[in-house]
Amino acid sequence: MPIKFEILAEDKVTRARAGLLHTPHGVIETPIFMPVGTGGTVKGMTQDALEALGVQILLGNTYHLYLRPGHELIREAGGLHRFMSWPHPILTDSGGFQVMSLKSLGRVTEDGVQFRSHLDGSAHFLSPERAVEIQLALGADIIMCLDECVEYPASHETLQRSVGLTTRWAKRAKEAFARDTGLGIWDTGHGAGEPGQGNRDLGLGTRDSGTESRGSGLGIRDLGSEPLPPNSEFQITDSGSLAPSPEPRTPSPESRIPCPALFGIVQGGTDKELRRQSAEALLELDFEGYAVGGLAVGEPKLEMDDTLQSTAELLPRDRPRYLMGVGTPEDLLEGVARGIDMFDCVMPTRNARNACAFTSEGKVILKNARYARDERPIDPSCTCAVCRRYSRRYLRHLFVTGEMLGAILATHHNLHFYLDTMRRMRQSLLFGEFAEFYRRVRSRP
Amino acid sequence: MPIKFEILAEDKVTRARAGLLHTPHGVIETPIFMPVGTGGTVKGMTQDALEALGVQILLGNTYHLYLRPGHELIREAGGLHRFMSWPHPILTDSGGFQVMSLKSLGRVTEDGVQFRSHLDGSAHFLSPERAVEIQLALGADIIMCLDECVEYPASHETLQRSVGLTTRWAKRAKEAFARDTGLGIWDTGHGAGEPGQGNRDLGLGTRDSGTESRGSGLGIRDLGSEPLPPNSEFQITDSGSLAPSPEPRTPSPESRIPCPALFGIVQGGTDKELRRQSAEALLELDFEGYAVGGLAVGEPKLEMDDTLQSTAELLPRDRPRYLMGVGTPEDLLEGVARGIDMFDCVMPTRNARNACAFTSEGKVILKNARYARDERPIDPSCTCAVCRRYSRRYLRHLFVTGEMLGAILATHHNLHFYLDTMRRMRQSLLFGEFAEFYRRVRSRP
Repeated sequence: MPIKFEILAEDKVTRARAGLLHTPHGVIETPIFMPVGTGGTVKGMTQDALEALGVQILLGNTYHLYLRPGHELIREAGGLHRFMSWPHPILTDSGGFQVMSLKSLGRVTEDGVQFRSHLDGSAHFLSPERAVEIQLALGADIIMCLDECVEYPASHETLQRSVGLTTRWAKRAKEAFARDTGLGIWDTGHGAGEPGQGNRDLGLGTRDSGTESRGSGLGIRDLGSEPLPPNSEFQITDSGSLAPSPEPRTPSPESRIPCPALFGIVQGGTDKELRRQSAEALLELDFEGYAVGGLAVGEPKLEMDDTLQSTAELLPRDRPRYLMGVGTPEDLLEGVARGIDMFDCVMPTRNARNACAFTSEGKVILKNARYARDERPIDPSCTCAVCRRYSRRYLRHLFVTGEMLGAILATHHNLHFYLDTMRRMRQSLLFGEFAEFYRRVRSRP
Repeated sequence: MPIKFEILAEDKVTRARAGLLHTPHGVIETPIFMPVGTGGTVKGMTQDALEALGVQILLGNTYHLYLRPGHELIREAGGLHRFMSWPHPILTDSGGFQVMSLKSLGRVTEDGVQFRSHLDGSAHFLSPERAVEIQLALGADIIMCLDECVEYPASHETLQRSVGLTTRWAKRAKEAFARDTGLGIWDTGHGAGEPGQGNRDLGLGTRDSGTESRGSGLGIRDLGSEPLPPNSEFQITDSGSLAPSPEPRTPSPESRIPCPALFGIVQGGTDKELRRQSAEALLELDFEGYAVGGLAVGEPKLEMDDTLQSTAELLPRDRPRYLMGVGTPEDLLEGVARGIDMFDCVMPTRNARNACAFTSEGKVILKNARYARDERPIDPSCTCAVCRRYSRRYLRHLFVTGEMLGAILATHHNLHFYLDTMRRMRQSLLFGEFAEFYRRVRSRP
């Protein structure tokens, strides 16, 4: 059982809840915001700074890491945690969103997505199986099924086809995951192995790593090996051979990557019936957690909230729910109120690099000439390390002169703002005051 | 007396010494390395990180700060310390080096330097008086005379002319400094003042701020006002009027900038006789500290060390000595051995951004493919926060993918290396072991 989800408090009015998500690399307090660590780094932030901010889990982009430095190199390094020196939880996406949002580069077929690298134009292929394989090499705590995220607006036919494809891909991902992890052993290319030769399916059978504790199997039965104990790790050997080693192997600590959890992704655009079909099909596959994808892709805000509301209601209470790629601080509030436990978004970090800071009184565009002599901090009511020390006039100077420190400080502040927003929501949930908190924030001018 | 220099230990073999330099913003342990905070920021470093590294004094570039955000804006902000939230000592250069090294842009006359902004081509003029005025607006603890730094190689005639000019400029700088600071009051443009209207000399007379405690005056007598007490501050009023205010003013804390110290700069290329002439002329003007300029501009290393040796010997024992713009870790050692107390150089920070790290075993080029799988830290014998956490393979990935964090981490490491080099030298001096330390380092393969 790679993850365990505990609910500590549920709001009586909304569907909001506070919980603990136990993962191989530590416990996450939900609801949680996950900063985006694109290519193994949250742009402009040291890992020490992330820890000081109270970041509990990072999101890594499989697409970027696959292209550079390559998942095989990261596997050799003992996984992404070790590679980037982040010993805390990590979630990786499937890579599909990036592949498909670079539209001219990607072509979707039943089998998967053909795409060209945005770096050198080289041809690649991403399938549900390959997305699992790459993510297992990266070694995140939570990994995602490959899904198809369609644009808004889309015809009913397009959405329907997409939901069907996403469901079939989810089933294939689940099977690949069971095969690759259930095996309890696979080659990392670490040590004697040759780098870059890809993951190898040794074909020795599969194992259900979740049956006992969860009461719901992976759908593929163990072919004879012992069930993994709780908190089990699967061994990564240093053999480069396809044949099982005749000698028992004692892996070095760095060659052991704990078994991750696989999440399914509900699609269906803003069509509630399709969302229901998608959710039900995924529930039958029994994932450890469920994500809501395909929102915040251009649909009106009210439609997004409405879709999210009805979709979240379909997801089981005892599994974490993750709203992908969302969003503004207001979106986080609406998401939590609808029962979402996890969020990720580039907004706080990307906006920061463009001199846009989030504050308790709205956005502050730090390049604005009006701040040239403004000695106030970014947000006078903020307690972050940046607001305690630096003025808007200094931040403006840094952005106007193109100094790195502008992006560094604004990123720090924005992440603090997002994390603090989540912490306030969680506190209000634990104190049984979320509905009031929600009303108070909503009623702000 | 804005600064006080205490010598704690002197080596018996070399001319090296360890001391304490008391400045208005704190005490500096010498010998010291000053990271370059070009435009109000050490590129890629937060002020917190600089403090954590043990940085005691920063260098600010007058040229860059004059152009952006402008010295008047910084004066309004209460000086560079407040503007950039660095409450520790700062030294500013005169701006002359940047103006003259952008050669096609600058033209040197007896009066000063005409130059065009590298940003927008706008015309500006820098004179010895103007350099003092701008630096006083920036409010550093130590400010520098405008000097002329000629290229290597240069004819004897050129060097001779340049030493003459530098000497005359030093005298003018000294007089301007005495006038501007001795006045005890000048306008900041803060509050009621209009920004951008330039510094105003109220013409109310001058004051010797150093006579009593140093036993050596500024060369210009007080015309009637009371001498400043030790650690005195000169008041910056919020009046925008040229007429003295009829009412006594109580300045707010942020409108008081402590009086800085002015250093003279010895020039003369690698000509020892010219260096002697330059030094003697400056000594007659009696500066609070002396810099050696015009070295590390292309001359052979041995010639540089030799010139430095003979020049440093001419400078008074009881004043801090500053070797400008130097240099490699080896240069620091040779400089300290010749009696230098202060150094600045862009090398650790600029090289870091170009993926070049300084280590106990020489330079490490972090982009090099050989480090793609190297799990060692930048320098296995380094104790800095970067070497304790991150691998070369991760650093290489960051540089190859152009991630900011590469520059951030390498800058941190390089500054640690430089500061640590200085700390080791200082420790060896305090323990009476410098000559041995010097021999040991020099004898390394």
